[in-house]
Amino acid sequence: MAKGIPTRSEDYSQWYIELVKQADLAENSDVRGCMVIKPYGYSIWEKMQQALDKMFKDTGHVNAYFPLFVPKSMFEAEEKNAEGFAKECAIVTHYRLKADPDNKGKLIVDPNAKLEEELVVRPTSEAIIWSTYKKWIQSYRDLPILINQWANVVRWEMRTRLFLRTAEFLWQEGHTAHATKQEAIKETEQMLDVYATFAEEFMAMPVVKGKKSENERFPGALDTYCIEAMMQDGKALQAGTSHFLGQNFAKAFDVKFSNKEGKLEEVWGTSWGVSTRLMGALIMAHSDDDGLIIPPKLAPIHVVIVPIFKSDEEFARISEKAEGIAKELRKQGFSVKYDNRDTQKPGFKFAEWELKGVPVRIAIGPRDLENGTVEVARRDTKEKQVMKMDDITSSIPTLLDDIQKNIYQRALKFKTEMTTRVDTYDEFKKVLDEKGGFVAAHWDGTAETEQKIKGETKATIRCIPLDAAVEEGKCIYSGKPSNRRVLFAIAY
Amino acid sequence: MAKGIPTRSEDYSQWYIELVKQADLAENSDVRGCMVIKPYGYSIWEKMQQALDKMFKDTGHVNAYFPLFVPKSMFEAEEKNAEGFAKECAIVTHYRLKADPDNKGKLIVDPNAKLEEELVVRPTSEAIIWSTYKKWIQSYRDLPILINQWANVVRWEMRTRLFLRTAEFLWQEGHTAHATKQEAIKETEQMLDVYATFAEEFMAMPVVKGKKSENERFPGALDTYCIEAMMQDGKALQAGTSHFLGQNFAKAFDVKFSNKEGKLEEVWGTSWGVSTRLMGALIMAHSDDDGLIIPPKLAPIHVVIVPIFKSDEEFARISEKAEGIAKELRKQGFSVKYDNRDTQKPGFKFAEWELKGVPVRIAIGPRDLENGTVEVARRDTKEKQVMKMDDITSSIPTLLDDIQKNIYQRALKFKTEMTTRVDTYDEFKKVLDEKGGFVAAHWDGTAETEQKIKGETKATIRCIPLDAAVEEGKCIYSGKPSNRRVLFAIAY
Repeated sequence: MAKGIPTRSEDYSQWYIELVKQADLAENSDVRGCMVIKPYGYSIWEKMQQALDKMFKDTGHVNAYFPLFVPKSMFEAEEKNAEGFAKECAIVTHYRLKADPDNKGKLIVDPNAKLEEELVVRPTSEAIIWSTYKKWIQSYRDLPILINQWANVVRWEMRTRLFLRTAEFLWQEGHTAHATKQEAIKETEQMLDVYATFAEEFMAMPVVKGKKSENERFPGALDTYCIEAMMQDGKALQAGTSHFLGQNFAKAFDVKFSNKEGKLEEVWGTSWGVSTRLMGALIMAHSDDDGLIIPPKLAPIHVVIVPIFKSDEEFARISEKAEGIAKELRKQGFSVKYDNRDTQKPGFKFAEWELKGVPVRIAIGPRDLENGTVEVARRDTKEKQVMKMDDITSSIPTLLDDIQKNIYQRALKFKTEMTTRVDTYDEFKKVLDEKGGFVAAHWDGTAETEQKIKGETKATIRCIPLDAAVEEGKCIYSGKPSNRRVLFAIAY
Repeated sequence: MAKGIPTRSEDYSQWYIELVKQADLAENSDVRGCMVIKPYGYSIWEKMQQALDKMFKDTGHVNAYFPLFVPKSMFEAEEKNAEGFAKECAIVTHYRLKADPDNKGKLIVDPNAKLEEELVVRPTSEAIIWSTYKKWIQSYRDLPILINQWANVVRWEMRTRLFLRTAEFLWQEGHTAHATKQEAIKETEQMLDVYATFAEEFMAMPVVKGKKSENERFPGALDTYCIEAMMQDGKALQAGTSHFLGQNFAKAFDVKFSNKEGKLEEVWGTSWGVSTRLMGALIMAHSDDDGLIIPPKLAPIHVVIVPIFKSDEEFARISEKAEGIAKELRKQGFSVKYDNRDTQKPGFKFAEWELKGVPVRIAIGPRDLENGTVEVARRDTKEKQVMKMDDITSSIPTLLDDIQKNIYQRALKFKTEMTTRVDTYDEFKKVLDEKGGFVAAHWDGTAETEQKIKGETKATIRCIPLDAAVEEGKCIYSGKPSNRRVLFAIAY
């Protein structure tokens, strides 16, 4: 059990927050709801970015950058029926700070520097991007547009939690424009697949691919696809979404193209995104009471080497071996840390690197020098083995592969165990209450039933899985006919 | 001469703006002063980022992310003597947009959602970062902190110009904290060297390294180092700055550490940054009346292949060869575009890729198929040569190297020619008037003289070059003694 962090069974929520802080991933800032992503956390996010960016480019996308600010009127264009509309977002109203004439040393917002039109800090960029696409698209020859943006966005969340829900967060948002409905739907599905592949291959996190119910859809989308993951406390987490926007944004921003026959048509669109929320998912999917467990493909440090010595002479001899191993492994592209601090004992170092989730630890002591061996410990299973020093550079790549796979398999097994089929509402409530996880149940397809179930149990429909088999049944709540099961869960 | 773009001699300023737009680098957005960086422009910026990021990491820095917003009070901490202070920046005062009850379809800023303390959209992050460092630094063991951040920042500029001066821009900002003055100065100088190396090796843009006069210093810095480049119209452009902050931010935010003797000391700091302004410098340093000239190391496309054909049969045979060449070059890590559009003629394609600054163009026609040759044109000198098809994959890397070097040498020659030593104020004014460029002159070291010269000629002291030789002389303006020349210029 890591120092100062409750175990998962004691307090899962507090375990998470303390782990994020103690492992140096992130912390709360002095600005309400905004976090500081610390170097160690940011280096994991950078690895996620690199992998995703490559996948986006391999599927034909390019990056671009659009303004941080969205004029208020663009939201009006988007929200033709604004009645009842309220958006929690940061609004810029002035453009100058000046010395307070009445209070020396204080600053005030200059009342003479009021903007004619207020600017909203982007909560997402559909509006600003589609108002730009209007200028770029005239003919079918201008399509498709396949653009991604890496950016910060702001949503004025009242209750925040590091990585999972913050006022400002980092994300990527893809915004594509197409000539046909089929092509846009294909794009939406392709990007869902990209996200699922990333989650499974890099994050070692199995996901369910599905569609959202109408209730849970992105406003402005005709269909929202999502990947849903299962956390260790039995709650679901939406890890990425891909929206088929139909012609909604083309209508809102008047984006038309002339087709091959010279007729004007409205453009079809998609948008898709994942955010620093994935950091939260990564942590909650795998880590344990001793700290982080990071899959090797996203680990900032793959291998840490800890020397165990009593004398300076031993230290020097061990260091020589350790540095040799480090050098060889680095040549193979691995990130290796030789922890040669003389201010901390090995036990302290072991605990620190376990907390930080380094996949492999190598310990070298005087006995190892004699025997030509090292002790290798893997973080995921905590198993230790003695290896020949000469075998290290060939064994480590295999071991890291194995760790990556094992973490995935463990999470997959957990997800499978935590998916329960129920056929009655009593069972449904019992499972949610006693076990949690995904509950696969028949639903009558109405928003009304969905809302009632949510009101009574807090469970929402996470998705209608894409691979759900056709199966006749009755809605657990209304008893009305249903032809396939959907996945319910209590979610982050 | 590129279509719709004036020549440089006709209107340099308009040439620049039109080139940026027509070459698809960037455009103005509907948001005042904010630009859209288009995919082609962004891909150059990405190459700059990658190269710089690697250099930062190779010198021991790590990336992190701090909040977009800075509470107003932090600026008060920074500006103890706020009298007369005015900062043009975007200020968030409210956090909700809602439907206008009096005007259907309109949105208003909810007056009930006013922030207790206004938030400034970061114009730079010293304040928010040093208020965070206060929590991270207790002992000398916590030092140094070597952090960089890639981020967007906002400064409410009244007169904007694409890339050169925009309200929102992208940049990196390094913020480091040290135990000693010497170490902080060394860091400041090291990062200046990193910037100069980047400018020269990647951007092919020679720069002068120097220190700013007190007038031109970053407020809060004890010393501002800079790199200054010379544009083709004879104006200087500040391409990067590195600030030695002394203990100023430690004082403002009360950041102390206990040294090895257990005594409390204030922390020493530096900050350093380059921005999307470098895009403007890159364009203005090299490009010509036909369009962009991009150094190969930053070019999104290294080689474009254009087929010249009359029949489908010819097209098929040429395509086979072209795709073979493309494949081989890609294997070597080059980015190759085979422009196989059948909707445009070769001449149109040539002009388009010249406009976009692709370093090497290969044309293949039916005669080439017979002779086993291709025509290779380099963008920088416009020279064409016929090459053996079999030699292409071995010759292109050398050619690209040569282009990179040639662009640099040409810019270096220009910079040298555009640097004039003068010893009288009359000469000084004459050179500025008739030739422009850097003017190396003696200056008495006073802010007063500097201001007067600026008022009379618009020329500012760009820097006191680090390599300026000791040389006794008299200030061109006051006649007072001076012991080295400084560089004046009219600047962007």
